Formats: sequence, C-alpha cells, structure tokens
Amino acid sequence: MDEGGDEVDLDTVLEALDRDEITVTEAKERLAGVRRIGEGEFARVDARQAERTGIPEIVEAERKTDEQLLGIGRELLSSTGRAILTGVPDSAKEALVAEADDDEFYERSRTLVLHAEDYEPPETRGRVGVVTAGTSDIAVAEQSAALAAEMGCDVETVYDVGVSAIHRLFAERETLESCDCVVVAAGREGALATVVAGLVSAPVIGLPVGTGTGYGGDGEAALLGMLQSCTYLTVVNIDAGFVAGGQAALIAR
Amino acid sequence: MDEGGDEVDLDTVLEALDRDEITVTEAKERLAGVRRIGEGEFARVDARQAERTGIPEIVEAERKTDEQLLGIGRELLSSTGRAILTGVPDSAKEALVAEADDDEFYERSRTLVLHAEDYEPPETRGRVGVVTAGTSDIAVAEQSAALAAEMGCDVETVYDVGVSAIHRLFAERETLESCDCVVVAAGREGALATVVAGLVSAPVIGLPVGTGTGYGGDGEAALLGMLQSCTYLTVVNIDAGFVAGGQAALIAR
Amino acid sequence: MDEGGDEVDLDTVLEALDRDEITVTEAKERLAGVRRIGEGEFARVDARQAERTGIPEIVEAERKTDEQLLGIGRELLSSTGRAILTGVPDSAKEALVAEADDDEFYERSRTLVLHAEDYEPPETRGRVGVVTAGTSDIAVAEQSAALAAEMGCDVETVYDVGVSAIHRLFAERETLESCDCVVVAAGREGALATVVAGLVSAPVIGLPVGTGTGYGGDGEAALLGMLQSCTYLTVVNIDAGFVAGGQAALIAR
Amino acid sequence: MDEGGDEVDLDTVLEALDRDEITVTEAKERLAGVRRIGEGEFARVDARQAERTGIPEIVEAERKTDEQLLGIGRELLSSTGRAILTGVPDSAKEALVAEADDDEFYERSRTLVLHAEDYEPPETRGRVGVVTAGTSDIAVAEQSAALAAEMGCDVETVYDVGVSAIHRLFAERETLESCDCVVVAAGREGALATVVAGLVSAPVIGLPVGTGTGYGGDGEAALLGMLQSCTYLTVVNIDAGFVAGGQAALIAR
Amino acid sequence: MDEGGDEVDLDTVLEALDRDEITVTEAKERLAGVRRIGEGEFARVDARQAERTGIPEIVEAERKTDEQLLGIGRELLSSTGRAILTGVPDSAKEALVAEADDDEFYERSRTLVLHAEDYEPPETRGRVGVVTAGTSDIAVAEQSAALAAEMGCDVETVYDVGVSAIHRLFAERETLESCDCVVVAAGREGALATVVAGLVSAPVIGLPVGTGTGYGGDGEAALLGMLQSCTYLTVVNIDAGFVAGGQAALIAR
Amino acid sequence: MDEGGDEVDLDTVLEALDRDEITVTEAKERLAGVRRIGEGEFARVDARQAERTGIPEIVEAERKTDEQLLGIGRELLSSTGRAILTGVPDSAKEALVAEADDDEFYERSRTLVLHAEDYEPPETRGRVGVVTAGTSDIAVAEQSAALAAEMGCDVETVYDVGVSAIHRLFAERETLESCDCVVVAAGREGALATVVAGLVSAPVIGLPVGTGTGYGGDGEAALLGMLQSCTYLTVVNIDAGFVAGGQAALIAR
Amino acid sequence: MDEGGDEVDLDTVLEALDRDEITVTEAKERLAGVRRIGEGEFARVDARQAERTGIPEIVEAERKTDEQLLGIGRELLSSTGRAILTGVPDSAKEALVAEADDDEFYERSRTLVLHAEDYEPPETRGRVGVVTAGTSDIAVAEQSAALAAEMGCDVETVYDVGVSAIHRLFAERETLESCDCVVVAAGREGALATVVAGLVSAPVIGLPVGTGTGYGGDGEAALLGMLQSCTYLTVVNIDAGFVAGGQAALIAR
Amino acid sequence: MDEGGDEVDLDTVLEALDRDEITVTEAKERLAGVRRIGEGEFARVDARQAERTGIPEIVEAERKTDEQLLGIGRELLSSTGRAILTGVPDSAKEALVAEADDDEFYERSRTLVLHAEDYEPPETRGRVGVVTAGTSDIAVAEQSAALAAEMGCDVETVYDVGVSAIHRLFAERETLESCDCVVVAAGREGALATVVAGLVSAPVIGLPVGTGTGYGGDGEAALLGMLQSCTYLTVVNIDAGFVAGGQAALIAR
Repeated sequence: MDEGGDEVDLDTVLEALDRDEITVTEAKERLAGVRRIGEGEFARVDARQAERTGIPEIVEAERKTDEQLLGIGRELLSSTGRAILTGVPDSAKEALVAEADDDEFYERSRTLVLHAEDYEPPETRGRVGVVTAGTSDIAVAEQSAALAAEMGCDVETVYDVGVSAIHRLFAERETLESCDCVVVAAGREGALATVVAGLVSAPVIGLPVGTGTGYGGDGEAALLGMLQSCTYLTVVNIDAGFVAGGQAALIAR
Repeated sequence: MDEGGDEVDLDTVLEALDRDEITVTEAKERLAGVRRIGEGEFARVDARQAERTGIPEIVEAERKTDEQLLGIGRELLSSTGRAILTGVPDSAKEALVAEADDDEFYERSRTLVLHAEDYEPPETRGRVGVVTAGTSDIAVAEQSAALAAEMGCDVETVYDVGVSAIHRLFAERETLESCDCVVVAAGREGALATVVAGLVSAPVIGLPVGTGTGYGGDGEAALLGMLQSCTYLTVVNIDAGFVAGGQAALIAR
Repeated sequence: MDEGGDEVDLDTVLEALDRDEITVTEAKERLAGVRRIGEGEFARVDARQAERTGIPEIVEAERKTDEQLLGIGRELLSSTGRAILTGVPDSAKEALVAEADDDEFYERSRTLVLHAEDYEPPETRGRVGVVTAGTSDIAVAEQSAALAAEMGCDVETVYDVGVSAIHRLFAERETLESCDCVVVAAGREGALATVVAGLVSAPVIGLPVGTGTGYGGDGEAALLGMLQSCTYLTVVNIDAGFVAGGQAALIAR
Repeated sequence: MDEGGDEVDLDTVLEALDRDEITVTEAKERLAGVRRIGEGEFARVDARQAERTGIPEIVEAERKTDEQLLGIGRELLSSTGRAILTGVPDSAKEALVAEADDDEFYERSRTLVLHAEDYEPPETRGRVGVVTAGTSDIAVAEQSAALAAEMGCDVETVYDVGVSAIHRLFAERETLESCDCVVVAAGREGALATVVAGLVSAPVIGLPVGTGTGYGGDGEAALLGMLQSCTYLTVVNIDAGFVAGGQAALIAR
Repeated sequence: MDEGGDEVDLDTVLEALDRDEITVTEAKERLAGVRRIGEGEFARVDARQAERTGIPEIVEAERKTDEQLLGIGRELLSSTGRAILTGVPDSAKEALVAEADDDEFYERSRTLVLHAEDYEPPETRGRVGVVTAGTSDIAVAEQSAALAAEMGCDVETVYDVGVSAIHRLFAERETLESCDCVVVAAGREGALATVVAGLVSAPVIGLPVGTGTGYGGDGEAALLGMLQSCTYLTVVNIDAGFVAGGQAALIAR
Repeated sequence: MDEGGDEVDLDTVLEALDRDEITVTEAKERLAGVRRIGEGEFARVDARQAERTGIPEIVEAERKTDEQLLGIGRELLSSTGRAILTGVPDSAKEALVAEADDDEFYERSRTLVLHAEDYEPPETRGRVGVVTAGTSDIAVAEQSAALAAEMGCDVETVYDVGVSAIHRLFAERETLESCDCVVVAAGREGALATVVAGLVSAPVIGLPVGTGTGYGGDGEAALLGMLQSCTYLTVVNIDAGFVAGGQAALIAR
Repeated sequence: MDEGGDEVDLDTVLEALDRDEITVTEAKERLAGVRRIGEGEFARVDARQAERTGIPEIVEAERKTDEQLLGIGRELLSSTGRAILTGVPDSAKEALVAEADDDEFYERSRTLVLHAEDYEPPETRGRVGVVTAGTSDIAVAEQSAALAAEMGCDVETVYDVGVSAIHRLFAERETLESCDCVVVAAGREGALATVVAGLVSAPVIGLPVGTGTGYGGDGEAALLGMLQSCTYLTVVNIDAGFVAGGQAALIAR
Repeated sequence: MDEGGDEVDLDTVLEALDRDEITVTEAKERLAGVRRIGEGEFARVDARQAERTGIPEIVEAERKTDEQLLGIGRELLSSTGRAILTGVPDSAKEALVAEADDDEFYERSRTLVLHAEDYEPPETRGRVGVVTAGTSDIAVAEQSAALAAEMGCDVETVYDVGVSAIHRLFAERETLESCDCVVVAAGREGALATVVAGLVSAPVIGLPVGTGTGYGGDGEAALLGMLQSCTYLTVVNIDAGFVAGGQAALIAR
C-alpha cells in the first residue's frame, strides 16, 4: 500500500524529495496528507490514527440524521471494511445493517459493528477483562468490550460484582488474573476499581460511570475516588467506555 | 444537683412557677440558664448539652494562649470533674496535667484528657470499633477513640488495614463484628468505609480524612465516596474525629 | 436454613473442610456463595447483606420496565417474603400488589411494600423519629420512615416544623425525646438538623433534601450546613432517604 | 462648604455653566472632581461616597508600611476629622494615636478609630444589634459594631449565643427586638442568622464568618446557608464585617 | 385579637401562669402556638412571622395542584384577608380570582395578588426603587416590586438601564435618589448593582438574576460580583426576588 | 447626522450649553440620550455602542415571539439599515427576509443577516481567520465568521483541523498567516487554540465550545485550558461566538 | 541573520533540499531547529516565537537561584540583546544590572528589563492603555505596561479609577480613546472592564486581578464577571499581566 | 520462598488444609497473611502487592523522622533487597545510603533508590518514554522514570518539548515511536499529552502537573484537558508520577 508514507513521515518524504522522485509540491501534499469522505458536510475521517494504532473510528450517532449515518457507514465500510456506530436509533439500524456483510449489535449502548464482505479481522492478540459494579454500569462497559473485541482481543466480561458484597468478586478472581488488562466500570463511589487493582496483576483502567445521585453523583465521586486510589490505576473520563476499551486493547496486545 | 432543671426544661419550670415555688424572674432565668466561665473573654461553657447527651465539651487549643487553656481546664475540672483539650502544645501540657488527679495523653492528636479527684467515670456501655486505612489516618481516628472511651465505651482500634490489600481486613473481621458501632477513618478514595460496611452488621460511620494530594485530595474524594457509598453508611465532615466518636458512643450504648 | 454459613464464613467452612465434611470445590463455592435471581439480565440479589444487617433490598423502579419490576418483585417475595420498590409507576403497581398478601403504598415517594403470605415481620425494636422542615421534604422523609418501619421500628413522624418559626418545634420535643434515633430531613439551609440535635438526646441523622433554588440549591447548602453543624450529627447524601432510614433502624434497635 | 457640587452633580454644574459662572474647562473638572492625597503612590481618597452616604472610608493596614499608614491617617484626620484603620500593627498604632484628639481601639480586629479635635460626631440615629454565634466570630462582628457606632448608631452586642443551645438566644430576645437592624455573624453552618430572623421584626443582615474546617469550611457553608435561608435575610460576603456594619447603619437611621 | 400573646411570648405566658389565670397545659400550648390550615396535607401557614414583620406569606404554585392552590388561596383570604401566589398557571388563575374582591396579576412572574373584601391595606410607608439591567431581569424584579408594594411601599421601577451604556442610568438618577432602598436586579456580570450603589445614598440590595450562559452563567458571576463589590451592598440569592422585595420594604419603612 | 453628539459627548454638549445654543434641560437630555424602539415592552436598542465601535446589535431570538422578532427586525432595518438575528426559528425567518432587500442565512447557528435597500456596507478592512477543531464547533464559529464579515472583514474559515491529527493544520498554515486576527473555536480539551497560537503571528482569540461530556465537559476544560495556555492568547466565554467575532474584527481593522 | 529559515519553514527547507543545497540530515535538523542555552539544566530558550511575533521571552525568577538567573540573563542579553525577568529578588538584581548597558526596574512587580549595548529597540507602533481599578491592581498592570512598552508601544497608564466612583473615569476618557487597545486590570467584582468597554472604541482586554477576599475572591469573581460581560471583551487568566500586555501590543501595532 | 502461598491464595491453602498438611489456625493465618515491620508505629509493609505486580513499595519521607526513615529503609533492604524513598531530606540521605550496597539519587524529586548486596534486578523488559512540556514538570516526571527503571524498563526521557513550539516535538518522534508506553507530564493546559497521543502508536498515560497559576492552575486545567482529550489517553491524578511510572512499566513489559 503506497500510503505507508504516513508511517515514515518526514524521513520518507525528505528522502524521496532528495532523490528527486517527487516535487516540492508533492512533498508538501504528502506531509499534510488529508483524506476526506466525499464533499458533503460530514466530518472528515482521518484514517491515519486508525492505521497507526489500530483503534477504529467510532461514529457517535447523536445529532446526526439517519441519512448522514448511512452515508458515513457506507463510506467507512468501503474505505476501511468496517464501521462502528454508537447510539444508533432503530430508525437507522436496519438500513445500516443492510449495507454490511455481517454485523453485531450491543443493545444497551446501541452500538452497531458492521463488516464488509472483504473485511479481515485483526489477528487475536491479548485478553481484556471488563468488570462492572452494578447493572447500570453495563451500558458503558459494553462500549469498552465492543471496541476491545473489534481490535482483536478476547474479552472477558464480569458484570455486577459490586464492592458492597466483596465475596462475589473472589469467585471471579481467576478469570481476571488471566487478562492482560482489566477495565473496571463503576459509578457511585467507584471503589471497585481500587479493589480489583488490589487483586490482579494486570494493569487496571478505572472507568467511572455517571450513576449516583446527590452530591458527588453523575460519576464525580467515582472519578475522584479512582484518581485518589491507593492502588496503581489509570483513569479515563466519566462514561468514556470507548477510550477505556481502546487503551485496554493497545495494552493487551 | 439542683440544676437538673435543665433536663426537664419547660415542664419542671412551669410547674414550679405554677406551684409558686419560684418567681417569674427566676423562671425566666432558669429557662435561659447560661453559665459562664468567670468574666473574661473566654467562651461560655454550656453544660446543658453535655448533661443531656453525655458528650463532654472538647476544647480546641488552637489560637488560645496557654493561660486561657489553663483557665478553661481548671474551670471544667472543678465544674464537671473532667477536661478534654485537643491540639495541646507542650508549653501548656504540664501545667494542665498538674491540675488533674489523673490524665491521659493521645500523642498524635495531642489530645489531653484530665480527671479531677472526685471524677466518676460513666458506667461502661457498648463497644466502638475504630478502623483506619493508613497510618496517616490515625491522628484523626484517635480523636474518635478518645471521645468514645471517655463516654464509657470499650474501644477496639484496628489501624492500617487499607483496601488496597483486602486480605488484611478479613483477619480483623471478628473483632469488628463484636462492636456496636464502627467508625472508619480513611483518606484518599475512602473505599475502606464501604468495604467495612459490607462486612459488619453494626452501624458504620464514615470519617473522611484530609489526606490525598492532587484532584479530590484533602479528603474531598473520601467524603464524596462515602456519601455515594453503595452500602448503608452515615458520614461526618472531613477530619471530624470527635463528631464521629461522640455519635458512635451515643449509638453504642 | 443451613446457609447460615454466611454468618460464620471462614471459620465454619475451614473447619468443615478440615473435618472432610466438604470438598475443596464445595469450600470454594461456599466462600464465594452468590445466589442469582434466575438467569435473566436482572440485577443479582445478594441476600447476604440483608441477612446480616436486616436492611431489606430496595428496588429502584426508575429505568426498569414494568415487566422487569414484576419479575424482581415476584422473585423477592418468594425468596425473602417481602419486596420494597420505590418510584413505582401506576402501570406496574397493580400487578405487583396482586402478587402480594398485603401491601402498603407511600404515595409521595411512590414506595410500595409487599409481603408474601408467610412473611414474618421482624420483632418490634426501637423507635425512630422522622422530622421534616417543610412539606416538600416529606417525599424523601417518607423513604426513611418506610424503611425503618419495615425493619421493625416504631416510627414517629413530625412533619413541617421548619426553623423559621422555632416555637413549633418545642411542642413536639417530648415526642422526639422518646426516640432512639431521629432523622431530620431538611432542604434549603438545613438548619433544622442542627436545632433538633441541640434539643434531643438521641443520635440525630441529617438528611439534606434537594430543595432550594439558586446558589447552594438542590440540597448543597443543606448538606454543607449539616457537615459543618456545631452540634453532633452524622449525615447522609442529598435525598438519601433510605440510607438514613436504614441506619436509623440499625441504631434504634 | 463649596464642594457641595458633588451632591447636586449634573444639575448644579450645568446651571453654573449656563449662567456663565464657570467655564467649560471648570465644568469638566468639577464633573470629574477627583481629590488626591498628596502626590505619593497612595490610594486616592474619594470623599464623595462618604459625603453622600455617611459611610466613612476604612483603611486596610495590610500590605501598607507604617509610614504609609501614618500619611493616610494624617490626611484623613485633617480632611474629614476622622480616620478608621483596620488590621493596624502595634508598630504603627502609637504614632497614629498621637495624631488624634481621641481614639478607640478594637483589639480583636485591631481596628483603630481616630478623631481630630474639631470632629463633630454624627447625631445619634437608630440602634444596630450585632450578634455572634461563637467567640471566634467576634473579630469580624466587631468591625460591624465599630463602623455602625462611628456612623451614629447605638450598638447592642449579643455575643456567643450559638444555635446549638437555643435557650440562650431567648434571654436576649428583648434586646434584639429593640434594634432597627440586626447583623448576625456566624461561621460553620451559619444557622443562627436564620434563627434570629425568625425571632425579630427588624431587617437582619447575615454575615458569614470564615470559621469551620473540612468541607464547606472557611465560611462557605455559612454563606450558602444564609443565601438559602427560609427566612427573609440579606447577606454580605464572608468576613465582610464593615460592609454589614455600614449597611446596617444606613438602614437603622 | 387575643392571640397577641405571640408577640409578648415568654413574659405574658409566664405571668398569666403565675397569676393562676392559665394552667400548665395551657401555658405549654400557648408557648408552642401553632395554627394549621384545616387538616389536609397542605403546608401549615404560620401567621406569626407575618404579624411580626408584616411580610405576607408567598405561595409557590409549582408542584401544587390547582385544587391545592385554591384551597390555600381561600384559607389565606379568609384568615389574613390577602393571598399572594406566584407561578400561577392559567388553569388555576380564574378560580382564584373569583374568590377575591380585587386582584392584581403580574404577568412575567405570574404572580397573583388577591384581597378579600374586608382587606385593609397597610398604610403607605417608604419608597422602594427596583432597577434592572436588561429586559430578561424583569420577571424576577417584578417579584420584588409586587411584594414591596403589597407591604405598603411606593415602588419606582427603572427597567433596562444596563451598565454597558452608562449614560442611560444618569437620566434616572434623581428618581433613584428619592428612594429609601433600591433593589438592583442584574444577571451576567451583575455590575449594575455596584454602579447604582456608587450613585445613590440609600441602602442597595443586589439581586442576581439567573441569566448569562457559559462559565459563570445562571447568575453565578452576578452573585459573586455583588458579594465582591467594592461598594456597600447586601445581597440575596439568585432569582430571590421576593426576599429582596421583602427586605427592601422592611428597610424602607 | 446631527446625533453625532453621542461621539463627542461631554465636550460638545457643554460647549453648546456655554454658547447658549441649548438649554440646561436639553443638555441633560442629550447627555442621557436614550432612543427606544416604539413604546412596546421590547428591549431598548442603544445605537450608541454600534456607532462608536462598529459592532452591530445582535438580537437573540430565544424567548421572543415571532411577532417581537419581526418588530425588532423592522425597527433595526429602518434605523440602522441592517438587522442580525440569531437562533431564528423557521416560523419567523420568512417574514423577516421579506422585510429586507438582501439577506444571508447561516444555517448551523440559524443566524439571519438582513440589509435594507439603502444599506451601505462598511469598507473592507482586515482579514479574520476562523478555525475549528471539529464539526461540532462550527455552529459557534459561524457566529464569529458572520459578525466579522458584517463588520467589513474578509473571513477565512478553516474548519475541522483538530489537534489529534496535527498534520492537517500545517496544510492551512499559510492561510492563517495571512490573517490579522485568528479565532480558534474548540471544545473538549481546547488544545487547538494553543497550537494555532504557536504557529501564527497574529493575535489569537480562544473560543471554547460547549462540547465534551463527563468531567470538564460543556466547554469547561476548553476554557480552563485556554486560560492556562503556555502561549499568548486572549479568551472569551464558552460558546461566545459573537464576542470573539466582534473583537476579532475590531482588532483586524 | 541566516536563520530566518524559521520564518519560511517548510517551503524554504524543502526547496533547499530540492536544490541539493542541503542534505536530508540538515533538512531534518533545520525543521526541528532547537537552540539551547548552554548545556546546563536551564530551560531551553526558543527564539522562534519571539522572532515570529515579537513577544520577548519573560523569565520568572521564582524558584530559580540567583546564579541561574544570572546565567539566563547573560545568555539572553548576548543572544537577543535583551532580557526581561520578573519577580527578581534584590540579591540577584545588582549582578544582573551590571551585565547590561541600560536597565529599567518596575518595583511593584519586581520586573527588570535589561538591554545590551547593541540592542536596537523595535520601532514605535501603536498606543496601549493600561487601566486599574485600585492601587492593589497596579503590580499586575505594570507587567502589561512593561511588556507592551518593550514591544514598541506607547503606554498610557490610568491607575486607580475604580467603578465605585464612576465620575473619575470620565476625566480620563479622552486619553483612553486615543489608545489602539486598552488593558483593564481589576480585582474584586471586575466591573471596571465592562464600564471601560462601554466607553471606548478600541478593543479591551480584561485582566482579572487576584484581589478580593471571601467567596469569589482571589480574582474568581472578576474573571467570571469579565467572561459574562454584556460588552465586547476578551479576557486573560487571573494575574496574567504579561499575557494581556503582549496581546495588547500585538493588537496595537 | 515458602510464602509463595500469597500467589495461589485460596486454592493452595484449602488444598493444604484438605490434605491435613496445615491446621485450621494456620490456614486462617495464611489467608490473612500480614507481615509487620517490627512492633513500632511504622506503617505495615505489605509485600504481597509487590510480589504480585512487581511494583515496589515507595516510601514518602514527608512527615517521617529520619529515624523512622532509616528503620523502614533497613527493613525493606533486608526483606526485599531494595528500598525506594522519595522526598528524602539531606539529613537522612547519608545514613540511608550507608545501609545499601548501591544507590541512585534523583535530585529534583529527592528520590533515593537503594539496593542490598544480594539484590537481583528484574530482567529488562520493555521501553518507557517519559516526556515533559517544561522544565518545571521534570521533578514529577522523574518519579515516573525512576519507578519504571526500577521495574526493569529501559527509560527514554524527552524533556522540555512543550506544545507552544510544536516543531521541537517532531525531532523526537522516532524515539517516542520506539517505546511500548509513553508518559507525558504537562502542567498548565496539558495539551502536550493530546499531541503526543496523536503522534505515537503506543499507549499514552497523561500525567498532569501542578503548575500554572490563576484559574485552572495547580494542574486542574491539565487534568481536565487530558480527561477531555480527543485522542485515546488514560490519566493519573495531578503530580502522581509514581502511579504513571508503575502503570507504564506494567504495560511496557
């Protein structure tokens, strides 16, 4: 693929220029290197970050018309062989599925994964654990699970093992120990992330969830608690399930 | 003691007035009932709350001169048979101790408990557990322990059993189960309070401690986490060790 | 019921294993000991905390379908003889009531308490006072009252005695003095909790209510005021009526 | 005094110009009307607000050298017959007192009031009550008392009648009822302002004081509580004793 | 009306008891002295604060049924001769008006003032100015104006004279100078309150309004700005138009 | 135009008065100088700021009826030859367009610019760049572009060049270097403003946009990041597109 | 100076490479182009931003040893002909002055400007106004003034014309109208920035100053007020005097 | 080492008990498994987390006496062969060094790493990049570097390549691309983390540093910006250099 220039960037381009294989204008273009999805008012899809890190583009359906979703879905399927859309309304889902060779739908987060016929999944590398404290944390955790799976990881989900009854967690300890990275989604006080990090050897990513009411609710206490954790944790923002899943997959492989 | 009128308040006074045992002026005075420590600019000591609830007055040494501390100490010893001062500087400690028949000094919180010769300790009632996550939480926890002890409770201290290594806590579970109320002092993310409340049957009071640095530090994450706890907890303010201890003793007996 | 093993936990299980009464696998299972409600995607109900502390599970109806509510209600009735659901919509109420032998409905908080035919109420232990500053605090206070009653406490409600006209409170003082624990629900500046704690001998739990508009509204000023109270108080989060009620009942008995 | 032009402002100046009594340049100067204290780098003293409202200038000693304080003190004494300085260090106090015909020193707030020989105090108008919850609120309350007194009001101080023992306040109710305006200085939860406003008929100004530790400390809970008060109150900023005193005096007369 | 005992409180009751004119039980009742509106679940109306300070009860229509509003309206009209309701929906307005002898409706704040036939307005005392920065501040300012008028004050409204064009304000200066108290309602940065306080001699009450978007919006910048004002101001909470109006009227008379 | 008196203000008026060309009353009126739009309850339109700085009035359509919008639109067209309304609903748009000689509609921000037949656009002066990080920032950025264009600037828009793929920005560097002022609209972490300020020589105005979810969302992280920028930036409030555009145009010319 | 390549950046380098004037390695080095101050642990001084925008490097003396300051001062003098250091302690000042041909010292901000013998000041372009509300704002304002002057602007300072006495400001209006950009430094409520922006035609930069105590103190109310201003303003962070001055100079020329 | 039971936990112990190799009491002890450092009041050192994850204990020197530091250092050296202490004062350093066979001292963070004679370093696994925006971020970044090195990683430090001059960063891109995980330490607006994550393929950990003054200072803007980043990042708390370093090392190997 001759666009590998993205990878080598400066060196490749300067050397090509030095060897007079390209002109100054071409050099400048390649250093800038932006690809657009058609000429509509859609967001430009930058394929470069995906190529470099293997994190696929996630399209948020919110505030987009069904038509726009369909357009972006088609474009991504034809250009990258895959499309991941989240928050997909029923009205757009069917038409999107019809464009794909196979699809998977995560109901709680309404995340739709589509593959084109010629899509070649990444080789399986690494195992990611996704743990939730309660049932209300699953919608966000599902985003992490979907993205990590799509990036080629085995995903182990251990849902609803909140800290108020610590015994449950022990039963799942072995499963978690087998993972290369564990995402812990928890709302309210978020203590589960601290407890899991105290139990397993793999790196743990805390994913605060916007549950909880009253003071410190909407995920704030969970975020602060994870940032203050007395164990070794990194953290993503409240409800940032995809960020946690993408990072977990990068780590796991 | 003829000032028991404080206890019966309205009823007693009105009845005495009705029986012409006292005058209107006396009735008004007894309903108001303020006793001062001398005529200086010291704080007035209201013996009534102590009498009603058995929570002794705590004197904060901060911003008081040694002389003032000595004055207040003497007054309390002679009027109530006991004085509890916290944050006592070395310069004032010796003179205070010399006033008392016996004394106890809690070094980390610099809390000094003094008893007069004729002091009759309250009968022993109830057992209070005081748990800390780390060593830096002990100074605050000690305030809870000191006050609960002074109010007649057996106090069990279980220090330094933080949540990052959950196994430690199990070893102390039996001790905690024997308590009528447990105070859990924890800084940083404060998750220990949630974990303890999940383990024991007695009411648990969360005592957030002003440790932790960065965002949510100074006890804020701990306070929010305890308020958001998925277990049943009540909470006191950051570093409010005496409030937690006093409430625990009220509950335990 | 032979699962009392939950109570003795480690000791019992280890001793049974030591006496070869159980296998290693059985030992592990009993230490983990999780019971599920069927195999659906409903929340797992952990009967253990309830058994240990006597605080029954509260089911929040919000974001659950009527079908899910009915399923959880049936499961709880058959497994524990009781179901408590809050925020119950009219659409689900009737079907739930039809499952029970007797029921009680608290209208302001839409809390529905159901008992199966063979339900044996806990013996009556202790008296809990529930005080509100205004009428708008009653919905939250009712949660405290309902839970404490269900845990076997006599409940005394003293509603609408706000601090702006202090005289009203005096008329109810005797009632409050007879309680073993008093919950004070107050919004806006929350001063009533401080005033009540200054009047009664029992432990007082401050329950800030999300009323008040403008700066410090939604219960924030009330929460901060109760945390800063110059009296001895413990506090729960804003609108956490069940937490206050459950703790009060634990204390009262 | 021919600078009364300040009072009539636009009208007077325009009329004088219309009658050709002054030139355009003079008109512009009088409309601008700034008087400076010498040519140093000292703050310009604007006599106009004082003349219009009778609130004297308060000089904060902090970050000023003794020399600067002496300079400002002299200037104010000679131009207005009075100087009020607050936070005055011992090093500057004596020299300042030596400049004056009579002086008053408020020790807790280190507020020094100086009068020149020819100073004519304002006629006595109105009575201002100044109430504090605790002894630590007195330093701030003293600022209110000093300023109101200097503006010609009788000042009644009722210190240390905090809300945790409500009975004390009743004894002073009559005194407070005789005031035209009451300033209530309170830290921590600030509930005293609400209670006083519920007891007296005069307008009450809440003065939150920067006491209290932990969450909502440094006067924040007091400020929010006063803003949220269920009674009719106006509020000034934390520790703004002079603002409360000045407003109280404006109201009282 | 023989319940004036509310006014004299302790003295009168104790003296009556002393003279054996009343029994202990009667004495206790009179010291408590609560009057209810029937036995419904409506809020108790405490006539005492109104009698003492002349600030009439304001009924917030929000979250009350039309039926409840009508009930409260009737009760207030018959017991006090007047009813003031705010946020009144069209559905309730007509029925309320039909109960009254005369009425006034403030449209922007939907405030309805009703008088019974035998209502005797308070004698006119004092003049209150109500100033707004923009048109969006008028709804809140109208609450101040309505309440002050109802308390017997002449009200001068000076609307829409925001600080961004200072010249407008000068044209109204004379009007403002004639007032005994000025309420300044301003959103966004709230600077108008500071400017007005710099221009007039009367006490100024800052009334921050919940306008403004982005950071510091919803009245927060206005509130903070008024608390920080370099002039003498007292402040009420955001959108607390009635509090400002009631206090202004207390001051003005 | 004889209302140029606004421009010269004090001088002109005083001199006219001095020359007896106007009366005192006229002088006062001209110093006050307010023009109203009819007598309705519409906001007063102050033409003075526009005349002085060339920033036209922007009318926010929100919370105005279509009728009010039409009235304001007509008034502005006839008095200033131009009307700019933002957030215009479809229901009002057509009628407004019908009043104008020519119009421009910015769809994302629903900003409608109308010109009367005799409208003379300002001479073209300066070039303003408007940059956005993502597509969701365009609605706000469009406000800046529309206002700067209307104030006579050439506007260069460079949309959707977010910092996560820095290479894109380089391709547009030359365009940005040609601008006299650059507005950078960015949500989430707002880093693009810092990056642009590091690349171009012109003054850069940071325009934080209310995108982003979770902690620091709604533009807060962007605002704080821009205030903390390690480059030289000035900042406007979140979503304050018109403020940024108006300032940019003032700077550019 | 042959490093002007910084200016043309990509183009120049690529063309030179294309013409074989430089090697690939040289091209890479020039694109990176970092110059260090010696080999110590001092901060690297990047001359590029200065060259591009003319904003000189400001060295904060805080937390640097006198030795380090002297080293940086010498390096800057020899490489750029000028050094600007702020917060310079007396201990370092003399040695620094000895290195320079001429110097200027701003006492309040302890800002020291040094010029080498061969220093050629920029040509004078534009006039910047610097206004302060009070004397305590001058230290910060001085930073703006010093930097703007050093960037070749005439600087007009108008200090101590706070909003509480609006008349003062009018006297200085003409001066401000002559400026191309005005910086307004104000603490507390920061209203002066709004007032100035309402008076002058030039762009105004609000510079909030960290004065004010209590709620909203330390510049927060001023910052929020300026962000919320109803006039056209851009804003810099609290106490960011150099940022305001640098931007003002960029705008003014 | 026969305490490897920590690793296998439940299984091993239960099986040993089942085989009658240990008693119930021994089983309980091993499940609890707490080792203390002597009997003093020092913190208990839990060797288990270290063994499981390879993250060594970090001892904060702050608030410990030199004697305590020496005791802890000795204990750790003899039990684990290594001691890492941070914030070590000069007074304690020498004595600590004397205990060790070899040592390394990081001056900016005063971090001291000690090894006993028999210490066997972990095998080298993975490469960690540590990047800082400015020189003031190095002290915190050094903690990350020290811990990652001690955990067996090659560490590449790239200091002082802040975002305000983006060109510098490109020169180091190749180095960063070779790392398995990159820690980016940045204060103020923290944009560097976003930029680096956009450039490299490895997982990036954002480490906000407590620099920056004014609003959003002390690392708050950096933290929020990193949480809001439009790239894939995980984040640790402000100044949590060791947490970032430990996590990076876990990821890198």
